[in-house]
Amino acid sequence: MTSELDKLCINTVRMLSIDAVQKAKSGHPGLPLGDAAMAYVLFTKIMRHNPVDPHWINRDRFVLSAGHGSAMLYSLLHLTGYDLSLDDLKSFRQRGSKTPGHPEVHLTPGIEATTGPLGQGVGNIVGMAIAREHLAAMFNTPDRELINFHVFGICSDGDMMEGVASEAASLAGHLGLGCITLLYDDNGISIDGSTDITFTENVMQRFEAYGWHVLDVDGLNPDEVEAAVKAGVGETARPTFIRCRTIIGFGSPHKAGTAKAHGSPLGDEEVAATKRNLGWPDDKFFYVPNEALKHFRLAVKRGADLQMQWERELDQAKIAAPGFSQIWERFWNFTLPKDWKEKLPVWSGNDKPVATRKASEKVINSLAPALPWMIGGSADLAESNLDYMEGLGDFEKGNRNGRNLRFGVREHGMGAILNGIALTAPFIAHGATFLNFLDYMKPSVRLAALSGIPVIYVYTHDSIGLGEDGPTHQPVEHLWHMRATPNLWVMRPADANETAQCWKLAIERRDGPTALCLTRQNLPVLDPTMFSLRVERGGYVLSEASREVPDLIIMATGSEVQLALGAQKELEVQGLSTRVVSNSLSSNQTITRDSFCRQV
Amino acid sequence: MTSELDKLCINTVRMLSIDAVQKAKSGHPGLPLGDAAMAYVLFTKIMRHNPVDPHWINRDRFVLSAGHGSAMLYSLLHLTGYDLSLDDLKSFRQRGSKTPGHPEVHLTPGIEATTGPLGQGVGNIVGMAIAREHLAAMFNTPDRELINFHVFGICSDGDMMEGVASEAASLAGHLGLGCITLLYDDNGISIDGSTDITFTENVMQRFEAYGWHVLDVDGLNPDEVEAAVKAGVGETARPTFIRCRTIIGFGSPHKAGTAKAHGSPLGDEEVAATKRNLGWPDDKFFYVPNEALKHFRLAVKRGADLQMQWERELDQAKIAAPGFSQIWERFWNFTLPKDWKEKLPVWSGNDKPVATRKASEKVINSLAPALPWMIGGSADLAESNLDYMEGLGDFEKGNRNGRNLRFGVREHGMGAILNGIALTAPFIAHGATFLNFLDYMKPSVRLAALSGIPVIYVYTHDSIGLGEDGPTHQPVEHLWHMRATPNLWVMRPADANETAQCWKLAIERRDGPTALCLTRQNLPVLDPTMFSLRVERGGYVLSEASREVPDLIIMATGSEVQLALGAQKELEVQGLSTRVVSNSLSSNQTITRDSFCRQV
Repeated sequence: MTSELDKLCINTVRMLSIDAVQKAKSGHPGLPLGDAAMAYVLFTKIMRHNPVDPHWINRDRFVLSAGHGSAMLYSLLHLTGYDLSLDDLKSFRQRGSKTPGHPEVHLTPGIEATTGPLGQGVGNIVGMAIAREHLAAMFNTPDRELINFHVFGICSDGDMMEGVASEAASLAGHLGLGCITLLYDDNGISIDGSTDITFTENVMQRFEAYGWHVLDVDGLNPDEVEAAVKAGVGETARPTFIRCRTIIGFGSPHKAGTAKAHGSPLGDEEVAATKRNLGWPDDKFFYVPNEALKHFRLAVKRGADLQMQWERELDQAKIAAPGFSQIWERFWNFTLPKDWKEKLPVWSGNDKPVATRKASEKVINSLAPALPWMIGGSADLAESNLDYMEGLGDFEKGNRNGRNLRFGVREHGMGAILNGIALTAPFIAHGATFLNFLDYMKPSVRLAALSGIPVIYVYTHDSIGLGEDGPTHQPVEHLWHMRATPNLWVMRPADANETAQCWKLAIERRDGPTALCLTRQNLPVLDPTMFSLRVERGGYVLSEASREVPDLIIMATGSEVQLALGAQKELEVQGLSTRVVSNSLSSNQTITRDSFCRQV
Repeated sequence: MTSELDKLCINTVRMLSIDAVQKAKSGHPGLPLGDAAMAYVLFTKIMRHNPVDPHWINRDRFVLSAGHGSAMLYSLLHLTGYDLSLDDLKSFRQRGSKTPGHPEVHLTPGIEATTGPLGQGVGNIVGMAIAREHLAAMFNTPDRELINFHVFGICSDGDMMEGVASEAASLAGHLGLGCITLLYDDNGISIDGSTDITFTENVMQRFEAYGWHVLDVDGLNPDEVEAAVKAGVGETARPTFIRCRTIIGFGSPHKAGTAKAHGSPLGDEEVAATKRNLGWPDDKFFYVPNEALKHFRLAVKRGADLQMQWERELDQAKIAAPGFSQIWERFWNFTLPKDWKEKLPVWSGNDKPVATRKASEKVINSLAPALPWMIGGSADLAESNLDYMEGLGDFEKGNRNGRNLRFGVREHGMGAILNGIALTAPFIAHGATFLNFLDYMKPSVRLAALSGIPVIYVYTHDSIGLGEDGPTHQPVEHLWHMRATPNLWVMRPADANETAQCWKLAIERRDGPTALCLTRQNLPVLDPTMFSLRVERGGYVLSEASREVPDLIIMATGSEVQLALGAQKELEVQGLSTRVVSNSLSSNQTITRDSFCRQV
C-alpha cells in the first residue's frame, strides 16, 4: 500500500525537478512529474545500489533512456545520498555544473550512461545485460553468485519510435536477457502533440513479438509499478517490458497531459499552481521535507550493508578458490598479461601480400585467448569482417561464456550495445561492419567518443577496393567524417604489421573509441627492416627521401601507402627527392570525390 | 493452378540470374533462386506496368529492398521487355554496365530506387505510398481515378532487422497506407548462417502490432503468392505484409538452405547441378526458352494497353474539367509559377535580428501555398524546426490532401520516406530535425545524394548556439561530414535574406539533395544595400576590404559571418585591410574541436 510518506517522497522528486527546470529557465518538467512514482519505486524499493560507492561492481544499473528527464534523475540521486548536492540541482543546465541538460556518464555520480539522443539508452541497457550475463558466467559458481545485478531503465515513446531501440530490443528478446526490466513511460504525448498524430502501433504487442515478458500498469500508482517490477526481476528467462500509463506533467493544472509540459519550464505561476495542486507549499523552492529526506537516505545504509555483504562473499570466494583472487583483481583492474604484446603476429617483407582485414583476424585470434576482456562480433558480416574469435564460442541463450556476439543486421543496435558492454566492466568490446555502414551506427559512435568509452570498431572494405558491390557500398566521406569527430581515434593501417600495431594502440586506449579501417584487398607487407613503422606517432616518415631536403612529400594512409611508395621510387629515378609519410593513425588523409564512382 | 509454363518461366528467371552471377564471378544467387516465383507472380500476373514506358505516371511501383538480389530483378526486366538486353545481363556487375551490383535508379530502366543498404527500400516504399495517396487526393475525382497505382516490394530478413524499416513500417501502419503490398522473403538464412543465431522474433506479430494486414504463404508456391498478393491489393485500409516462406538457393543440390548460397557464385559445377536438378539443360548459358520469352513479353502488349486506356481517361479528364489540363501538365513538368520568386520574403537592414530557422519558416509559408509540390515535415520537432506549413493540413488517414507530414521521432525512416516521395513525382519534399541528428538519418541522405534525388533537409540548431541541451545535441563534425559527401549541397546562410536565397536554390535544384543548416539563435540582418548577398556563387566576397589587396581574408558561414564582419570592422580600425568571404553554400568552413564542449 502506498503510504503518505511514499506520496510525500514522490512529490519531493516532482517539486525538486520542476524547481530545477524553472530556475534554469530551460528543460523538461513533464517527464519528472509523470514518472516520479516509477523512479521512486526503483530507487527506494527495488534497486540494490550504494549511493556512497557508485562504482560498486555488483550494483543494479539504471539508465534513463529518455535523458531529457534528467532533472528527475538528478533529484533522485541527490535525495538517495549520491554526491550531488542541492546546489548542484540549483545549477541545473548551467555551464560547468554536474547537472547538464542530458545525463553524462563520468561526470555525475550515479549516471550509468550518457543519454539524450533517443533510443540509445535502450541499446545501452541491452549491452549492460549482455555484460552482466557474461560476467556472471565468468565469475559465478553453482554455490556463489558474485554477479547478479539487474539492469533497469525508463524509456519514452520517443525511444520506442527510434529504430535503434527496435534493433536492440529484438536482440535482447532473442538472447533471453532476463536481467532487464524496462519501464516504458506511455504518456501519449510527444513534442509535436499527441502521439495519435504519428504513433498508434501496439507497442506491447511488438515487444511480445520480440520475445519479451510484457506487463501493463498504471505508472502513477506506486503499488502497481512495484508489483510489476518485482515480477520483472523474478522473470529470469526473458527481458521484461512494463508499459506504464502516465500523464505527462502530472499535477500541473493547465499543462498536464499536453505537449506544453514536455520541453519548456512550466512558468513561475504554473509551478506555484502545480505545488498547490499537489498539496505542496507554493512559496518554497528546492524544498525537501525532513521526513522525506530521512526516508530517501535510508538508501545509504541499505546500500552500504548490501555492498558489505557482497564484499564478504567476494572475500570468501577468494579464500575458497586459490587463484580466483588474482583472476578477479586482474580482470577488474584491467591488468593485461605482461607478455601480451609478444603475442602480436609479425610479418616479414618476404611474406605474401595480405589484406589488412586478414591481418586483423590473425591479431584478434592471437590475442583473444590470452585477453579475457575481448568480446565482440559483427553485424552479420563476420565472414567478411574476419573478426570471429575461433574457439571462444557464441554468446547465446545456452552459452553465456561465449565471447562472439552475433549482432545480426543491426549496426545501430550494435553500436549502442557495445557502449553498454564497455560501460559495465573493463571489456575490450569490438563491433564490425563495412566502413560504409558506419553511417548506420554513427549516433552510437558519437556517444562513445563523447563519453570516453573504449570501444573498437572493425570497419573493413574501407575503399573502392571492396569490389563489385558498387557505390551503395563504397565509403567515400567516411574517413573525413570520423576524423572530424572529436575523441574518436581513426586508424587506417598500411599493411599487416601496421594493423597489429594499430590493434595494440586500440587495446591500450581506455578513454575513448577507436575505428580500425581495413582493406578487403591484399596489400604488400612493408619490410619492417627497410621501413620505419611507427604508427603510434600518428603521422610519421615511413620512407625518407634521398636528399635531406626533399623536393616532394607524399602523404597517404592504408591501401594508398603502397602506391605512394611506388611513386616515390619512380620519382627518385627521375631525380625528384621524395619522402613518404604514412598517416595511419590521425590527421586528415587524401580522399578524392572521384572515388564515388559507380563501379571499380 | 501453376502451369508448366509458369514453372518454365520461373526457372528461366532463376537460371538467368545464376548464370549472370556465375559469369560475373561475384554476386548473390540465393535470393533469385528462392524468390523467383514471388517476383514472377508480381511482374506477370499482378503489376500494371508498361516495359516500353518505365516512366508511365500511373505504373505500379516495385522496389527490391533486398537489393543484393539485383540479378533477379534484371532478369525480369529483360524478360518482360524493358530496355535491358541479354548482353546487359552478361555484363552484370561490370564497370559501366546497366546492371550494377545493386540496383540504381536513373541508370537502369524499370529500377524505381537505389537499394542495397538494407532497410532503405522499405522506407522508400512507404514514401512512394504517401506520394501515391497524396497524388490521388490531388488529381482523382469521385468519378475518375487517374492515380491508383500500387506499391510492391520484396524485402529480406536483413531488411527486417534494420531499424529504418521498423520506423517506416510503424508509420505506414499508422497512416493506413493500403496501397502497399510488401513480400517478406523469410528464408531463415543470413550471411553469417541461420537466422536462429540472432533473429528469432515473430516478425508477423510485429507487423500486426504496427497495424498491418498480415498474411503467411509458401513463397515457392506461385498460386499461394498470387492469392495473397491479390488479397493485399484488395485491402485498401491497411498496408499488407506477406511472409513468404522460401528456401535460399532453391534448387541448388548442395547449397540450398545454407548461407553458402547467399553472397557468392555457386561455382560452375553447382550451377550445372542446379540446372539438372530443375530440369534445365546444363550446357546452356543465359538460355531463354522461346515459349517462356513469349509468355513474359505479353507484358509489353498488356502494358501498352493499360497505359493507352489510362491516357484515354486522362484526355477525358482534361476535356471534362477546364483548367485541369494546365494544372496536370504544370505539376508533372515541374513548371513553377512565373512569379514564385517574388513571393520570397525580404528583410531590410533595419529589421530586428532573426534566427535563420525563423526566416526559413517565413520562406516556407510564403511559398507553400503557391507551390503545390511542397510537402514535408519534421521528426517530432516541428515547433523547433519551424517547418510547419500553416493552413495546409496534416497528411493523415482521414486527410490525404494534407501536406504536412508527421514523421514522429523517426529520423532515419523520414530520410528513406522522403527519397520515396521524391522518386515518385516531382515533389519538393522536405524533412526537418536538429543538425546533430543528421547522424540518425545519414544512410538515407547518402542514397539521396548518390541517386540524385531532390530532397531538402531543414537542419536547425546548427551550432552550440542551440542552448543548454548540451553536447549530446551539439553538432560539431556534421558540416565537415556533409561537405565531404559527394553531390550533397550544404548551405549555411548567414542571415534571413541568405536563408531565402538558399531556399530558392534548393527548390530549383532537381538533381540532388540540399541541406539547409539554420540557427536557433537570432542573427542580425545584413543590410542588403550595404552587403553583397550572392549566395548562389557558393563562396563570395560579402564585404570588401578597404584596400585592393587586403591584408587579411576572413572566411565564415552561418552564424559566424556576423562575427567575421565585427572582426573586420575592428581590424580596419587598426589599419589592417580585411575582406570577409561568406561560404554559405559550398566548400569547407571553420570548425573548432573546442565546440564539442559540455555546455554553452
